[in-house]
Amino acid sequence: MALEDVKALHFDVFGTVVDWRSSIISELEAFGARKGVNADWVQFADDWRGMYQPSMDAVRRGDREWRPLDTLHRESLITLISRHNITGLTEEEIDHLNKAWHRLNPWPDTVEGLTRLKKKYILATLSNGNVALLVNMARHGELPWDAILGAEVNRAYKPLPQCYLGNARYLDLEPSQCMLVAAHNDDLAAARTLGYHTAFVCRPTEYGPHQTKDKKADSDWDVVADTMTGVADALDC
Amino acid sequence: MALEDVKALHFDVFGTVVDWRSSIISELEAFGARKGVNADWVQFADDWRGMYQPSMDAVRRGDREWRPLDTLHRESLITLISRHNITGLTEEEIDHLNKAWHRLNPWPDTVEGLTRLKKKYILATLSNGNVALLVNMARHGELPWDAILGAEVNRAYKPLPQCYLGNARYLDLEPSQCMLVAAHNDDLAAARTLGYHTAFVCRPTEYGPHQTKDKKADSDWDVVADTMTGVADALDC
Repeated sequence: MALEDVKALHFDVFGTVVDWRSSIISELEAFGARKGVNADWVQFADDWRGMYQPSMDAVRRGDREWRPLDTLHRESLITLISRHNITGLTEEEIDHLNKAWHRLNPWPDTVEGLTRLKKKYILATLSNGNVALLVNMARHGELPWDAILGAEVNRAYKPLPQCYLGNARYLDLEPSQCMLVAAHNDDLAAARTLGYHTAFVCRPTEYGPHQTKDKKADSDWDVVADTMTGVADALDC
Repeated sequence: MALEDVKALHFDVFGTVVDWRSSIISELEAFGARKGVNADWVQFADDWRGMYQPSMDAVRRGDREWRPLDTLHRESLITLISRHNITGLTEEEIDHLNKAWHRLNPWPDTVEGLTRLKKKYILATLSNGNVALLVNMARHGELPWDAILGAEVNRAYKPLPQCYLGNARYLDLEPSQCMLVAAHNDDLAAARTLGYHTAFVCRPTEYGPHQTKDKKADSDWDVVADTMTGVADALDC
């Protein structure tokens, strides 16, 4: 189970690879300015992300059939539009806003880090984002993935085990040949339990200036770094 | 459903993107030389590919549970090793030979063609090859895919409809927003029936000098070209 056995790096994406919060806020603000709609867009963005984990719960439990994250994001968006008393949006405008998640910007260190890591490792997504979202995001941010994997191709949202195990199986690897790279301690804990190696990338402003969680490594992860280039350094890439 | 609506190109891989025959022959010959094993390696390669379609039939019919192409390739390989009276191979040697399908070389025009097409279109695999095979092949041949899709993520071998329809769905597109690029008329016919646009790339030596099938377009496919760069020309890329 040595680190030298690792063949593939699997990446959490929201927060780890891309800065969803500032991207979503600027998409919302630009939309509001264009449409002449006033709202607390920072709060709107945080509310939207706040509905992210709960929206997957019924699917995780099997109480709702599988549906991709785009669908869950859109359901949350419609709730929030109403809650923030915004009216008069067309279906196309709602779709456009929902696809802001396809246009998230990478952190400044992401592309250089991934490009260096790709020389030595297979790079796959292990995200709850759906395939279309991740493909469009990769084209938007020039993210050099070898494979778009994760929840949708495994029909299971993290932290369900089959999401991590399915990703390894798709690459014909044992979990011990895989490493999860994530900014979230709970994600890494789930992966480690299943035999994955682990790399923590600290993203202390993912949730904005008042973030309380994941400001440091909560365990002795195999790699701990502040940036994706730091992960590359640690892995001699 | 105009050609301008196309957002994604989906690619058949064996024969269309890579020259499996010459790649497999040279892998087998190199292996034979290294091991001091004599065999008719050209015939061995053709026999191996000859078992490809039949090996998927029981899975297509549902008589065998889903299994990835690597597994079917290995079953055929073991049959052929015995039929060609080759003895004394280790499991590791058999695995190495089986993974020759992960190391197939692109046709000379492939990488330039794909690179040009990628500027305008999402590029996805729509192959019966499994994810690991296609990921390793892409790294070997520097194929710039946006997404590794196809049989394994849809749990259905072509020409079953759910393989084509599932690929479109993963990209959140209608079939009419998709185009299959393939060197095989029957694959294009299956895709067209489901609403895909179609591009035929003529590969008249895919099966060697005596090829009889697919030497020309059998229908009025949307694009007909001799090379991947020819497809890029036809699509103004």
